[in-house]
Amino acid sequence: MIVFSRKLAESYQDRLKGKFPNENFIYCDTMEEVNTYIRDTEVYVTFGSDINEEFIKKAVSLKWIHVLSAGVDNLPFASIRERGIRVTNVRGIHKTQMSEYAISMLLQVYRQEKSVIKNEENQVWDNQGISLREITGKTMVVVGTGAIGSEVARLGKAFGMYTIGVSRSGKKVEHFNENYKISELNQALSLADFVISVLPSTKETKDIFKYEQFKAMPNRAVFLNMGRGDAVMEEDLLAAIRAGEIEHAILDVVKEEPLPKGHPFWTEETITITPHISGVSPEYTNRALDIFEENLQVFRRNGDNYINPIDLTRGY
Amino acid sequence: MIVFSRKLAESYQDRLKGKFPNENFIYCDTMEEVNTYIRDTEVYVTFGSDINEEFIKKAVSLKWIHVLSAGVDNLPFASIRERGIRVTNVRGIHKTQMSEYAISMLLQVYRQEKSVIKNEENQVWDNQGISLREITGKTMVVVGTGAIGSEVARLGKAFGMYTIGVSRSGKKVEHFNENYKISELNQALSLADFVISVLPSTKETKDIFKYEQFKAMPNRAVFLNMGRGDAVMEEDLLAAIRAGEIEHAILDVVKEEPLPKGHPFWTEETITITPHISGVSPEYTNRALDIFEENLQVFRRNGDNYINPIDLTRGY
Repeated sequence: MIVFSRKLAESYQDRLKGKFPNENFIYCDTMEEVNTYIRDTEVYVTFGSDINEEFIKKAVSLKWIHVLSAGVDNLPFASIRERGIRVTNVRGIHKTQMSEYAISMLLQVYRQEKSVIKNEENQVWDNQGISLREITGKTMVVVGTGAIGSEVARLGKAFGMYTIGVSRSGKKVEHFNENYKISELNQALSLADFVISVLPSTKETKDIFKYEQFKAMPNRAVFLNMGRGDAVMEEDLLAAIRAGEIEHAILDVVKEEPLPKGHPFWTEETITITPHISGVSPEYTNRALDIFEENLQVFRRNGDNYINPIDLTRGY
Repeated sequence: MIVFSRKLAESYQDRLKGKFPNENFIYCDTMEEVNTYIRDTEVYVTFGSDINEEFIKKAVSLKWIHVLSAGVDNLPFASIRERGIRVTNVRGIHKTQMSEYAISMLLQVYRQEKSVIKNEENQVWDNQGISLREITGKTMVVVGTGAIGSEVARLGKAFGMYTIGVSRSGKKVEHFNENYKISELNQALSLADFVISVLPSTKETKDIFKYEQFKAMPNRAVFLNMGRGDAVMEEDLLAAIRAGEIEHAILDVVKEEPLPKGHPFWTEETITITPHISGVSPEYTNRALDIFEENLQVFRRNGDNYINPIDLTRGY
């Protein structure tokens, strides 16, 4: 039995039924409903924030969890590993929309789009009072050089940017002019006009952006986080912004989501907040099911060549 | 004597003096001031909207006009041709900022940035009530395939777009998948997700976008004009937008600039107005002087290989 934690639109249900007529797909609305099927669930398809130790204990038939997002940081990895449950996710399907997000937000800041839009609302034709800059030719430092980071760099290069990637190993990755190790992070940051964080949430990336890192960036730097909110020490970012250590921060992810009303991030003029939308795309479900279908075939033939297997020790 | 219609910043004056110590550069603040030098002006450097028949008549020593913009449509071409005065402009130096403008505005519309910004102002974290689309993979029709059009297409291709160019000749131009003749305009428009007009102002391009052209576009089309305002029959555009013939129009240029308060374009929700900013860049003067300096050398050695000569018969 293959249990989905959310109801898919009918067109997607039809698509799966058409391709896998012999499978028993169950689409749930609530966790209560999931719970009624839990003993017989062989495959669980979820967005990943609904699985805890108890869930794993009750899911006695569970062999494979497919997470329909890139972040798997909420999973109880120890129990999953112990039971030998396979975990896969949909990493890679976020790269197109997330790269568009990054470029659009850099353009929004460099082209003062908020002011231009405000003037438009007021029917004011003003091309003297605004200062427009080009993102072309700038230096972009991308922290996290997986599928998303590499795609952002590819677009950066299309805009004539110099691209620097930072990753654990510092190994050469496509679309980067240079690659640094995470131990050389500050050195890389010191070169940046734009810093793009696409780090996942792991023990090592937690609070990796502290005051010291913002200080290492040039004062002109624009910092953009679309990885995970917990990569940023938020008090430090606020202090650094207020001290002029960097010019602007764009945050699509924060530690507490939704960001509460009244949080100082909302009103700081040089912080732009977006509500975790970088990964949103009308193509999302299509692309996610492409991967699920491939992996379901692997699962049924007891294969081992899953797309996007999660390393249960590293957590991503 | 080389007369500038506007005062350049001192750093630029120093740069010219350093490179051409024997030239007599005059920087004016007003047209009255220009008039006091007009009889001795050999070279006139201008933004191009201050030259009329009378100017040409009075400027008896004038041999070369260098226009610091791309649009030269206001010049009295007949008199200039008669006198054998050379005209050059700075076309080509707009391509970087104008391409960034085009991409940023397409992203603004497709990613509902106005709504996202409005929510941010109200401290509302909402990622359900907005619908984000990708510009990746769409079809872009660029009308006008010069330096700017080709650069927009290059960036379009970086976003995985299919690019179609439309020009008088229909000749193959770099970065376009297909090229159409202007006589096949409607056919090209019928394929577009995005239509980008970068047409100059000439007799042939005046009012080229009429109701018929907007009707030829798919209803989902986004039309962007950053060429010249008079390429668009504005009543037709308004009617077509209101009839749903196209989804959205982005206008950086209009027939009457500044667009008057109260003009219906300001308040139509699916028309976005920007105040002729697509060509603005902090690099503008630097790049414009690069071309002027090259051409000044050609002028002094009585050469013929000017950069960007204007064809006085065609008007561009």
